[in-house]
Amino acid sequence: MRIFGDSISGNCLKVKWTADHLGLTYDWVETDVLKAATRTAEFLAMNPAGQVPAIILEGGRPLAQSNAIILYLAEGSALIPADAYERARMLEWMFWEQYSHEPYVAVARFQVRFQGKSVADLEPRIVERGKAALRRIEDGLAASSFLVGDHVSLADVALVAYTREAEDGGFRLADYPKVQAWIGRVEKALKII
Amino acid sequence: MRIFGDSISGNCLKVKWTADHLGLTYDWVETDVLKAATRTAEFLAMNPAGQVPAIILEGGRPLAQSNAIILYLAEGSALIPADAYERARMLEWMFWEQYSHEPYVAVARFQVRFQGKSVADLEPRIVERGKAALRRIEDGLAASSFLVGDHVSLADVALVAYTREAEDGGFRLADYPKVQAWIGRVEKALKII
Repeated sequence: MRIFGDSISGNCLKVKWTADHLGLTYDWVETDVLKAATRTAEFLAMNPAGQVPAIILEGGRPLAQSNAIILYLAEGSALIPADAYERARMLEWMFWEQYSHEPYVAVARFQVRFQGKSVADLEPRIVERGKAALRRIEDGLAASSFLVGDHVSLADVALVAYTREAEDGGFRLADYPKVQAWIGRVEKALKII
Repeated sequence: MRIFGDSISGNCLKVKWTADHLGLTYDWVETDVLKAATRTAEFLAMNPAGQVPAIILEGGRPLAQSNAIILYLAEGSALIPADAYERARMLEWMFWEQYSHEPYVAVARFQVRFQGKSVADLEPRIVERGKAALRRIEDGLAASSFLVGDHVSLADVALVAYTREAEDGGFRLADYPKVQAWIGRVEKALKII
């Protein structure tokens, strides 16, 4: 398997962490988004959406979208709950992540860290919705140590990727103590620090 | 099962279509987003994200996020391919829909149809990315009659919901002939017209 990813991207790191956690063998192909490496004809032939991460499976079959990739890789593993309802709640967090978390928490971080914008100049909408997303995770951790029950799942993999970098976008994790503690637990469970 | 949905929302219709296609029994609870029915304390206790659709399963267990709901409802049915790779491609389309299609194609339609904005006043970014999303579907239909092979799947359910309404947001479906034909096939397969 080949993983095309940019190491500065949380979406790409989700795939790396999942593959490493499962002990899968792969070649990492560093793909620099800032240098438009996802816009070459060769890359677009593999993923017409022009986004990383993307993987090439044995036999040459491509697959894109971070959360679709980790669901594929982790099928049958303990990262996906066996119970149908818990699995559905995991997917609820994963779709919510792409719609209501990444476009704010990750975009704020990208603009500040890689595009040189100051936190004060971020769009208010991005800041407000990013804070709401972090609050939602804080509330989601009220009764369990991980997002779906007391075992690490792909919901945690998907959400921790940009949440642990949220301060780069001007968010204060100290305002979300359960989130802070959860980040540490997920990092430990995935051995990512 | 109770489905909380707003009939003007494609995300909510995905759930209705899937339940109807599968012959499931449910009560539809019309939930008016424009009247902030998703912001009441009662609604937020069920779905803290404050979004429709949301469902209450037998036993009172809640579930939100349109694509997570339809994946739960359709488990084991022909709407989800049995092959692991085809299933992953279906999920790829579904995550892409929430990140790269809905925020442009659905948002343009919402602003024009329900907020009174003229097509000419839409943010150029929304128009450009909406067109790119429609082009991506057009290209995705080059070799098959549905998005994943030649059988209707949840990828088609998820993508058709707002694509069939795209003209309300100023997009011209005649520019995407494969998409136009596919909309008809999906509507027929799901019996939604």
